[in-house]
Amino acid sequence: MLKKSGRLILGVDPGTALVGWGLVRQQGSRLSMLAHGCIKNPPHMAQSERLLRIYAQMTEIFARHRPDVAAVEQLFFSKNVTTGISVAQARGVILLTARQAGVTLAEYRPDQIKTSVCGYGRADKKQVQLMVKRLLGLKEIVKSDDTADALAAAICHAHSSILDRVQIKR
Amino acid sequence: MLKKSGRLILGVDPGTALVGWGLVRQQGSRLSMLAHGCIKNPPHMAQSERLLRIYAQMTEIFARHRPDVAAVEQLFFSKNVTTGISVAQARGVILLTARQAGVTLAEYRPDQIKTSVCGYGRADKKQVQLMVKRLLGLKEIVKSDDTADALAAAICHAHSSILDRVQIKR
Repeated sequence: MLKKSGRLILGVDPGTALVGWGLVRQQGSRLSMLAHGCIKNPPHMAQSERLLRIYAQMTEIFARHRPDVAAVEQLFFSKNVTTGISVAQARGVILLTARQAGVTLAEYRPDQIKTSVCGYGRADKKQVQLMVKRLLGLKEIVKSDDTADALAAAICHAHSSILDRVQIKR
Repeated sequence: MLKKSGRLILGVDPGTALVGWGLVRQQGSRLSMLAHGCIKNPPHMAQSERLLRIYAQMTEIFARHRPDVAAVEQLFFSKNVTTGISVAQARGVILLTARQAGVTLAEYRPDQIKTSVCGYGRADKKQVQLMVKRLLGLKEIVKSDDTADALAAAICHAHSSILDRVQIKR
């Protein structure tokens, strides 16, 4: 059973410099945005220091918003393996904080998220921003790419669970 | 200044199924093994569950042994990117626990570690095990590859800090 107030989905777009996040409420097929933000780590900060900050801030976000599900974008890297390793290390810390908060994890590939939100797996950043605005009934687009991607991950989870008639218990 | 009792170096070989660790005391150029082990995650355990266990056990290892330095092997993957992503996620959690414990981090590439321990950057597992035994004055080889690799990382750090005359303050 969904809670009376709907189900809360926290979308997360992992990174080391920027971690986008966005909280979406799903009530039946109706979606609304409750909160969003982006963890920003200064340039030249050591990787391990970034992990510390991501851990602290994600732990705080889970405690404050108490989502039912965390929808976290999966990684695919073909270009820069060194950057990819750093992002994967940050993603490990994000998955850890979700589990420590007792939140159900859902993971989606970037092309799954884009298909779910834009109907096209290779949609560009601008198309994602526009569809996030439309699907969540926002007045303006979310300017940060990372935050828009996080909201898109949350929408993707909402769509796939509507389709699958998945019921996730608190 | 090194402490009277020597400097404690915790070597770590990251993984998702197996995380090897080994504690080495460095007193001048003399090295000795104080403790070693391997975190073992059962097969078929979900990645996020593994991260939870690695976090809990590494946190406990840092608290119990209070090393001065953590020497953590760096990742290089050319073959299997999917496995590489998982290992990098686990490595992120390991770096996090080191930082949370206030331990100085040192990172070495696999070929640096092998060169430092065996004199040859492409030494095989058996050569590493034999040299770890010899350099730490053990009666027998350490059978677990992952644990031997972790001890090798600690030895590599000891060697490089002898060479560099690096002094790390507690």
